[in-house]
Amino acid sequence: MAEAPTPSFPHRHLLGIEGLKRDEILSLLDLSEQAAAQSRRVDKKSSDLRGRTLINLFFEASTRTQSSFELAGKRLGADVMNMSIPTSSIKKGETLIDTAVTLNAMRPDLLVVRHHAAGAVELLSQKVDCSVINAGDGSHEHPTQALLDALTIRRHKKRFEGLTVAICGDIAHSRVARSNILSLNTLGARVRVVAPSTLLGEDVERLGVEAFTSMHEGLKDADVVMMLRLQRERMASSLIPSQREYFHFYGLDAEKLASAREDAIVMHPGPMNRGVEIDAAIADSPRSVIREQVEMGVAVRMAVLQALARHLPNE
Amino acid sequence: MAEAPTPSFPHRHLLGIEGLKRDEILSLLDLSEQAAAQSRRVDKKSSDLRGRTLINLFFEASTRTQSSFELAGKRLGADVMNMSIPTSSIKKGETLIDTAVTLNAMRPDLLVVRHHAAGAVELLSQKVDCSVINAGDGSHEHPTQALLDALTIRRHKKRFEGLTVAICGDIAHSRVARSNILSLNTLGARVRVVAPSTLLGEDVERLGVEAFTSMHEGLKDADVVMMLRLQRERMASSLIPSQREYFHFYGLDAEKLASAREDAIVMHPGPMNRGVEIDAAIADSPRSVIREQVEMGVAVRMAVLQALARHLPNE
Amino acid sequence: MAEAPTPSFPHRHLLGIEGLKRDEILSLLDLSEQAAAQSRRVDKKSSDLRGRTLINLFFEASTRTQSSFELAGKRLGADVMNMSIPTSSIKKGETLIDTAVTLNAMRPDLLVVRHHAAGAVELLSQKVDCSVINAGDGSHEHPTQALLDALTIRRHKKRFEGLTVAICGDIAHSRVARSNILSLNTLGARVRVVAPSTLLGEDVERLGVEAFTSMHEGLKDADVVMMLRLQRERMASSLIPSQREYFHFYGLDAEKLASAREDAIVMHPGPMNRGVEIDAAIADSPRSVIREQVEMGVAVRMAVLQALARHLPNE
Repeated sequence: MAEAPTPSFPHRHLLGIEGLKRDEILSLLDLSEQAAAQSRRVDKKSSDLRGRTLINLFFEASTRTQSSFELAGKRLGADVMNMSIPTSSIKKGETLIDTAVTLNAMRPDLLVVRHHAAGAVELLSQKVDCSVINAGDGSHEHPTQALLDALTIRRHKKRFEGLTVAICGDIAHSRVARSNILSLNTLGARVRVVAPSTLLGEDVERLGVEAFTSMHEGLKDADVVMMLRLQRERMASSLIPSQREYFHFYGLDAEKLASAREDAIVMHPGPMNRGVEIDAAIADSPRSVIREQVEMGVAVRMAVLQALARHLPNE
Repeated sequence: MAEAPTPSFPHRHLLGIEGLKRDEILSLLDLSEQAAAQSRRVDKKSSDLRGRTLINLFFEASTRTQSSFELAGKRLGADVMNMSIPTSSIKKGETLIDTAVTLNAMRPDLLVVRHHAAGAVELLSQKVDCSVINAGDGSHEHPTQALLDALTIRRHKKRFEGLTVAICGDIAHSRVARSNILSLNTLGARVRVVAPSTLLGEDVERLGVEAFTSMHEGLKDADVVMMLRLQRERMASSLIPSQREYFHFYGLDAEKLASAREDAIVMHPGPMNRGVEIDAAIADSPRSVIREQVEMGVAVRMAVLQALARHLPNE
Repeated sequence: MAEAPTPSFPHRHLLGIEGLKRDEILSLLDLSEQAAAQSRRVDKKSSDLRGRTLINLFFEASTRTQSSFELAGKRLGADVMNMSIPTSSIKKGETLIDTAVTLNAMRPDLLVVRHHAAGAVELLSQKVDCSVINAGDGSHEHPTQALLDALTIRRHKKRFEGLTVAICGDIAHSRVARSNILSLNTLGARVRVVAPSTLLGEDVERLGVEAFTSMHEGLKDADVVMMLRLQRERMASSLIPSQREYFHFYGLDAEKLASAREDAIVMHPGPMNRGVEIDAAIADSPRSVIREQVEMGVAVRMAVLQALARHLPNE
């Protein structure tokens, strides 16, 4: 893909959607479309990142995101090394930095990091020479998820301006919600959040979204309904609703979805809790674009790796 | 190996030996011999599957089988991704399908699956676009094991017709036994099974084999003695024999092996419980072909990957 | 790197520093410098080991050493397969050998092994056809660590003759200490060991080093101060000092380091217990070469793989 137009993406790291300009996001989406086409070829492999080293450093388990980055790196010809470091093996604050500095000394070009603490990935990026990609840090950001969501929306709706996107569920603890709000706002969509008041979060107003506690009101005339995974592991136990109760009020079923536009698409970042935040029949219906989100996940990660590789200091 | 003759293997998946024709099995064995030669070269790598993606999806741990597929894929030039999903992380029936559909969206070409439930791999194959290879599903089938066993037998006996093969041990719970019975029957060998009556299984007669409860009778004049691993984890606890008692009656030692033909070979799918189902001295004796089985394991998996890749829908 | 001069390294395995001649060690260091340069290139990948199979067999977890060998193999173009076998899954003595023989049947060219028992790697090397590299066996040897330490020292001091190197900490349980003593003695340096008498070990005199129980005396005029990790898991519990007490007497801080030469460098094999065997400020100071040790770790492993590959029986 040497003929690809150089994207206007001037950043060395991808730590979050915050701070990205509209054109920068759009250039990544354009590059992602090319990457998606590459993954549909018989020969899915290019040599864009041949001789480059990508390290996947996951302090928090994530089969889906890690796989997606692994395939993205391999399809671009990079050498990929996975490192899963269980939280239990980390005792002290220094260890994150020591681990990063150690890996950095092995001279990777690209370092993908997931960590359970908000801000950990940015801290780490200040200590290394390579490009760092945030694959999710606590309840802060998950930028590649927001990019793949934007790409999936654009493929179906052809635009962002004037679209109404309803993000539903555990807004307070969701890095997916946060990155999507930042991204969709920047791209010109109208974003609503829908959640029980205990899960709306405190700073949600500051993010420039409209908040609802009723699914019927929040979904009214929406073009996109984006469900979130109920992150029980991130909630204080007194706040955890019963699954039955949660599904009754906030689970997406045909009746609630009827409030949205007739051509509304349904999204979910996965893995789904079927029968908790989403009805199985809706998840498998033609309006669901959940599988396409996964496919675009590999494409977006390929695009991000390529865009950052063009800014590596040793090139 | 572009010069290799196209094998007459018309299937998109390899879900079991059941349903395979004699010529189809033989064509895989022929292709495996070429692959074995490739693994003996200094440069073991070809580009047959360059640009292809192979995913190893193991819901049940298996160091040996997973390694064998991993090396097979890498030696053919494919990009290989391992995914080990512990049973503990799976709660609901949908999860298997959700996982498979998610992986499918990442556009692999070949998906190798091991699962603890019989039939799970076939179910999964109906939900994906890629070729699926059964690496063992519950007590149902383990087709690549039967193929590597057939290849090892052919290398030593040069034929299948007229051979007497005695499969000994926990027949009831063994997918290895089941796939081998189907394969060896199709290839023209006479198959006997030898086990205590509680481990013979109920449908063993229907499979067209002769059943024995005495090792001496079952091994009499056998050309091949195939021992099985005692699968304690698959048995109801009341059925588990003591190891000492089991070895006394059914463990292969020199005295029992004396009933077989003088040139009989000894096989075991591994990993062995030395002193339980097989005497250590027999396992390490010149009549044992256990190491060759492992070598043929990589070769057979290379052949299967190549044969299926020729039928991929996007080629 | 086909133009690289053939190193005078006549061994098939690298099981330890013991038995290596001075020129053989120096030739590996020279080859390592070339490998280090390769890892600093934009395209870090060569095809020296293309078509070769490297298996990383770790019976003991080690993020750092395993990663280092994995990257080394991949940068040389080999197919690399990692196998982590937890100690809990090993019951009998035969299993180590069965595992090795099984892997050997898959026809790897190079087998990197870490094991918790001294001598296990050498035992294993007698059962296989491929080249074996000891990545640490119990408290016996860890030769690639000693080589990377020697390389780091040479880069800073330009020589070994006349240098005074003080190795400090848990000498008795340290394979790092043992391999470094053997290596540095052979290279012509004067080696001192510094430890509380319970951690000095019994055979330390036989190794031709000077032993100290006082850090001030042991570090006096040293050119190199090499700290060891406190290996609590290898000590009998009655011998374990409190961390506070240990740091007071044997932890490296500015005051103790003042006894060494003004241009002394500080080393640590990692991972560090900051505040136990080394003060955090010293670890991060300009005199610390700890990050460079990690970088040289990849380079030395590349050199070892290349040197052994030239002696593979099938080439």
